[in-house]
Amino acid sequence: MSSQTTTGTLLVCCPDRKGLVAALSGLLYNHGANILQAQQHTDTTEKIFFQRIHFDLAELDISRSELDDLLRIECGRYEMRWRISYSDPPKRIAIFVSKFEHCFYDLLLRHRLGELPCELALVISNHPDLESGAAQFGVPYHVFPITKQNKAEQEKKEIELLQRENIDLIVMARYMQVLSDDFLATFPDRIINIHHSFLPAFIGAKPYHQAYERGVKLIGATAHYATSDLDEGPIISQKVVPCSHRDTIKDLVRKGRDVERVALAEAVRWSLEDRIIVHGRRTTVF
Amino acid sequence: MSSQTTTGTLLVCCPDRKGLVAALSGLLYNHGANILQAQQHTDTTEKIFFQRIHFDLAELDISRSELDDLLRIECGRYEMRWRISYSDPPKRIAIFVSKFEHCFYDLLLRHRLGELPCELALVISNHPDLESGAAQFGVPYHVFPITKQNKAEQEKKEIELLQRENIDLIVMARYMQVLSDDFLATFPDRIINIHHSFLPAFIGAKPYHQAYERGVKLIGATAHYATSDLDEGPIISQKVVPCSHRDTIKDLVRKGRDVERVALAEAVRWSLEDRIIVHGRRTTVF
Amino acid sequence: MSSQTTTGTLLVCCPDRKGLVAALSGLLYNHGANILQAQQHTDTTEKIFFQRIHFDLAELDISRSELDDLLRIECGRYEMRWRISYSDPPKRIAIFVSKFEHCFYDLLLRHRLGELPCELALVISNHPDLESGAAQFGVPYHVFPITKQNKAEQEKKEIELLQRENIDLIVMARYMQVLSDDFLATFPDRIINIHHSFLPAFIGAKPYHQAYERGVKLIGATAHYATSDLDEGPIISQKVVPCSHRDTIKDLVRKGRDVERVALAEAVRWSLEDRIIVHGRRTTVF
Amino acid sequence: MSSQTTTGTLLVCCPDRKGLVAALSGLLYNHGANILQAQQHTDTTEKIFFQRIHFDLAELDISRSELDDLLRIECGRYEMRWRISYSDPPKRIAIFVSKFEHCFYDLLLRHRLGELPCELALVISNHPDLESGAAQFGVPYHVFPITKQNKAEQEKKEIELLQRENIDLIVMARYMQVLSDDFLATFPDRIINIHHSFLPAFIGAKPYHQAYERGVKLIGATAHYATSDLDEGPIISQKVVPCSHRDTIKDLVRKGRDVERVALAEAVRWSLEDRIIVHGRRTTVF
Repeated sequence: MSSQTTTGTLLVCCPDRKGLVAALSGLLYNHGANILQAQQHTDTTEKIFFQRIHFDLAELDISRSELDDLLRIECGRYEMRWRISYSDPPKRIAIFVSKFEHCFYDLLLRHRLGELPCELALVISNHPDLESGAAQFGVPYHVFPITKQNKAEQEKKEIELLQRENIDLIVMARYMQVLSDDFLATFPDRIINIHHSFLPAFIGAKPYHQAYERGVKLIGATAHYATSDLDEGPIISQKVVPCSHRDTIKDLVRKGRDVERVALAEAVRWSLEDRIIVHGRRTTVF
Repeated sequence: MSSQTTTGTLLVCCPDRKGLVAALSGLLYNHGANILQAQQHTDTTEKIFFQRIHFDLAELDISRSELDDLLRIECGRYEMRWRISYSDPPKRIAIFVSKFEHCFYDLLLRHRLGELPCELALVISNHPDLESGAAQFGVPYHVFPITKQNKAEQEKKEIELLQRENIDLIVMARYMQVLSDDFLATFPDRIINIHHSFLPAFIGAKPYHQAYERGVKLIGATAHYATSDLDEGPIISQKVVPCSHRDTIKDLVRKGRDVERVALAEAVRWSLEDRIIVHGRRTTVF
Repeated sequence: MSSQTTTGTLLVCCPDRKGLVAALSGLLYNHGANILQAQQHTDTTEKIFFQRIHFDLAELDISRSELDDLLRIECGRYEMRWRISYSDPPKRIAIFVSKFEHCFYDLLLRHRLGELPCELALVISNHPDLESGAAQFGVPYHVFPITKQNKAEQEKKEIELLQRENIDLIVMARYMQVLSDDFLATFPDRIINIHHSFLPAFIGAKPYHQAYERGVKLIGATAHYATSDLDEGPIISQKVVPCSHRDTIKDLVRKGRDVERVALAEAVRWSLEDRIIVHGRRTTVF
Repeated sequence: MSSQTTTGTLLVCCPDRKGLVAALSGLLYNHGANILQAQQHTDTTEKIFFQRIHFDLAELDISRSELDDLLRIECGRYEMRWRISYSDPPKRIAIFVSKFEHCFYDLLLRHRLGELPCELALVISNHPDLESGAAQFGVPYHVFPITKQNKAEQEKKEIELLQRENIDLIVMARYMQVLSDDFLATFPDRIINIHHSFLPAFIGAKPYHQAYERGVKLIGATAHYATSDLDEGPIISQKVVPCSHRDTIKDLVRKGRDVERVALAEAVRWSLEDRIIVHGRRTTVF
């Protein structure tokens, strides 16, 4: 999957019509791109075309900005929503945390192990608790305590920091604050959250308590894009694990941590690898 | 697990206190029972004691009715809810179906393969469609067409039939009628239903359509005891299967059939093996 | 996924080079094909290119034989192994069975439910036991008893029957005879077998007994193409299910049936949908 | 599951006969123990009885050594192998590591999160690489470089250290040295290893490479007790994760890390909670 050479990834989404695959693959081929992976999916119900093309730039005979121009023209002809990104420079991510450390450490470790192709630019938290953890991994840690009174102001500072640091992706690793609509609108489809239930079951607070009360036999976790409808954003990854009458709420929390970690890390990796197209409330994950 | 000799299974549930395990195992031992399997669980939050004892009757030195008397006295001392049942004669089950055949055939086949220790006494349906299927497996098929007008009357006839046939367990294998509260109250904790979602997500009609709209990445099925709160009964078994943007609603229905079958069959087998204790909205499955 | 219109599916595999995606999508587009699904994968280690293109024929402006000619020329230029097939007429499959009925009935039912896009042309068995089952579903049943003495002769008759009936795919649904190398060579990559373990663990006879002895905590099933190296053919699908010390060999057999059914059905469906490319000992499943 | 009060756990294993459950539960009851969890399993094939009793000591009316004496007498009568342990003082574990850090950090974090009821007494490694990681969590780290020449001598020092530190359980968290038979014999059923395949598939070196070559569709991990037969010890926990043609060996290694972590942590926790009885090549996990 990974390549040492520089690669580009093109994601497109548009009303379905003939010739779309040929148009884009032709354009890339004509300029020396070598396609490494391509997937095309047509939603035959809604007549929507989705495509991901992952290609090698080694012999590309035009500049990135020239390719941009060509794509703008070609994609314009087909009313495509499109986005191109490159493996170099790597994307920059920011992790938002509060006090729970399991997802946080998991991301730090995966990054160090080379699982997440990105720069871990910074951590933002409303608490100082995890600062030493960030320090161990050499990641700057910024504390923005949040109160009802200062929330708007603090978010403004956070946005400034994120923009100044050219953050491509924000990961809410069990961050226990609801982001405002303004904040969310600033980073559309660029904020990933982990919810500790298999959504849409157990929306809202204390999902493990809800799961215990309901007596379910599976508990889960859902990684999704954050939107202004809480717990309603497009789902990226879901994982479950069996549970039983033997599990107390504390046990459910423990089991849940394992699936939270895996679902969140998967979603982050897929996002960094430009595998996800959001369309309405749903995601296409190539 | 299974034994060719006759076995008994005792299920008990009561407020926790000391000596419960010793009391029942002592009583059984003193009368020649050989315990094959025993599990005891204490819900330390609610202080409830649950136990299942599965034992060999070969050298029992008293009659079943004498054992009943002794248990009544002993369990009375501890305010136990209790139930004893025997492998012989086998339990008798009735399957309720409409037009969907996948769970229906699955149960017929599993019974023939020896997976379900019971007599398949009869099938009840509101449609004649699956009659020939039942005939192939030699199971009597009774049609009770249901309309708004005749529902109460038809249910009364169904209850008469079920009671006359000494039915121990009713299995709703995608039966597309809502049973009345009166019907449900006649067979408490003895009616198993399969719902085609991982409850409590997608309660109500067309769960696969709901799942598609929400864009989930897992679909599931839930076997539960039927209660007057639709889709709210105590959950026995839940299964899920991954899905993706490639799955149309038709694909979700197809994938869902696989987990519906397995979840329902598991719940039925566990019930026949007397592994389930219902307490409030939750089940203990030993 | 499925479409009511006629569709074609092209599978190709060749040494990787630039322009492959553009070449084939261009050819199809130029002749009016509408691509519904396309996936392209490059094995960067071995430098092999794999592609599946699934397209709508409704506005194809040339005949199938003309398309064949064009593909032969184009694919020849790139040293491609290629295969095209059409949704109409449907593929014809033959099921081989012995006495175990769970996979057999499962395939019959899935076919009736519309899960398997094919004609269920015939059943071949070395025993008469399942004849009535086939009759219930209206499928011709041919008995070829096999002994050491008559095996070569019987296989010859089977091959004649399969060829006369234009069988596209042979499914060994727990068929308990080893097919000869001659038989296998007659239908390369067209015979699917189900082995009742997660290969390569527990190769050979009695895998559930082996699994019990080894004390594993998962048992599995593997659907693979049959080759002359027994249990060594390219793997298509694998499924597992948890087990424990509570499971006797009989329980493992029961649990295993569930995963055998699902793995085999999945492999058959994927084959019928032309999703599988075999390359060496491995499969690419789009 | 967890209790703030001190608890004891009794594990027994013996030839099956009547009265075993009554004998032990009676003995405990008579001296004031409150049974919190009990499971009893009879292997009906081999006629072996297994039991775990987890009880509250709060009102025990005899000392631990007196209970020991009583159990010695009672268990002696039935030829029981038995072991009793207490939640206080907590068990002490030693982690063996080399250079791979994923299982190592996972155990450190789970311990800090309260998932592993033990003292993390020390780390032993043949390399200094992970020393700073251990330091971050405040765990002493001992380096014993191993060469062919010094292996016996170094192992002797390791054993001395482990015995001096009263280590109850040794966890090989991807430790890349084979322990000698002498070492293993010193800690029978007290060394847990993680193998990066679903054993018995892919025994020996480079299992992910083997899995890639074989083209499997699931990869796994197996936590087992280490014995002198490499990769043949009694299995405690196995986990798998789906893979496909898209996964390079590097991807398999990445995916495998997730299941290695979960399988190993589960095995360690079960061992610390005294849930495991080894009998021959198999484990009973209550």
